[in-house]
Amino acid sequence: MSSNQPSEGLTGRKIIYDEDGKPCRSCNTLEDFKFVTGKITGKPVGSTSSAKSTHHIPKTSKLIPGSKIYEKQDPPDVNELGKSTWNFLHSMAAKYPVNPSSQQKSEMNQFFNIFSHIYPCNWCADDFEKYIRENAPRVNSRDELGRWLCDAHNQVNEKLGKEKFNCNLWDKRWRTGWDE
Amino acid sequence: MSSNQPSEGLTGRKIIYDEDGKPCRSCNTLEDFKFVTGKITGKPVGSTSSAKSTHHIPKTSKLIPGSKIYEKQDPPDVNELGKSTWNFLHSMAAKYPVNPSSQQKSEMNQFFNIFSHIYPCNWCADDFEKYIRENAPRVNSRDELGRWLCDAHNQVNEKLGKEKFNCNLWDKRWRTGWDE
Repeated sequence: MSSNQPSEGLTGRKIIYDEDGKPCRSCNTLEDFKFVTGKITGKPVGSTSSAKSTHHIPKTSKLIPGSKIYEKQDPPDVNELGKSTWNFLHSMAAKYPVNPSSQQKSEMNQFFNIFSHIYPCNWCADDFEKYIRENAPRVNSRDELGRWLCDAHNQVNEKLGKEKFNCNLWDKRWRTGWDE
Repeated sequence: MSSNQPSEGLTGRKIIYDEDGKPCRSCNTLEDFKFVTGKITGKPVGSTSSAKSTHHIPKTSKLIPGSKIYEKQDPPDVNELGKSTWNFLHSMAAKYPVNPSSQQKSEMNQFFNIFSHIYPCNWCADDFEKYIRENAPRVNSRDELGRWLCDAHNQVNEKLGKEKFNCNLWDKRWRTGWDE
C-alpha cells in the first residue's frame, strides 16, 4: 500500500492490500475495491452526505466477445466469496459420514489445515488458521463436524457484528431443510 | 431408491438417491428434490402441459424462531452448490502464487485429491475424481492452475450442454476483472 492510497473504503471498512501493494479483490467489498481503484467516486460512510447517494457502480453486464451467454462479470468480492464458501463447507459437513473411517477423519483434518492456507481472502484465512489452532476441527461424526463448523461460522458472525446462528439447527439449515 | 420412487424429476433430470435410499439434496435441483419428496406436484418436462405452469415451490421465508435475521432457508441444491464452489475454487486459483513453493504445490495437489472425496454432490465428486486421475492438477504456477481449473469447469459445462468458457480469459473473470 503506497502512502497516497486510502486506508478506508466507502463502507467504512479498512482497505486490504496485497503484498504487491494492489488492493485485494477477494479481501474487500466490490464497492470498496471500485472506490480504491478509482472506478467509482464517493464519500466514505460518516461524511456529511450518505455514501449511497454520491457514488455509482457501473454495470458491467455486457457479453464477453465471442460468447452467447457469459457476461463480463466481476470476480467475487469478500462477501460473495464468503457466502459461497460457507455454502460449500456446510454442505460438506452435511454429507460427512455419521461414522467416518480413520481415513475420512484424517482427510477432513488435512482439508481444514490446507484450507486455512489457500482461502483467497488472506486475512480471513489467517483468522481461520488461528481459530483451528485454538479449536481443532471435530471430525468424529457428522453432527460433531456440523456443530464445530457452525461455531466457526458464528465466530465470524460475531466479528462482523452479526447475530449468531443457533447451532442446534445446523442440521435443518444445511442438511434436512425445515419441513421434516 | 425403492421401486415406487420416481427415477426422473420435473426438470427431466435423473433423480439421485443417497445410499440410505433418500433423495440427495446436494445432487438434485431443489425443484426435483421437492417433487420427489412430495412437497410439490407437477408433470415432468415433456408431458402435455409445461412443468412451469403445473407446480409451485412454496416459499419458506419465515424467520427461524428466536432469530431476527435468519430465515428458514433451504440447504443449497446441486446448482447453488456448484456455483458457490466454482466461486471458491476459481478465486483460490486467482490467489495462488505466481511462483509457488514445493509445499504450496504439494498442498494444492492434496487439496484437489481430498476435494474429490468430500464434495457433497457424490456423482459430481466421482466425475471430478475421474477427471483429475486423467488430467492431473497443474500446480506449477498461478496461470497453469487457473487454466487447468477453467478446463475442468468446461468439462462440466460440456456435460450440461452449456457453452465453454474461453480459458484465455480466466484471469479477467476471476482475478483482475474486465476494466484493466
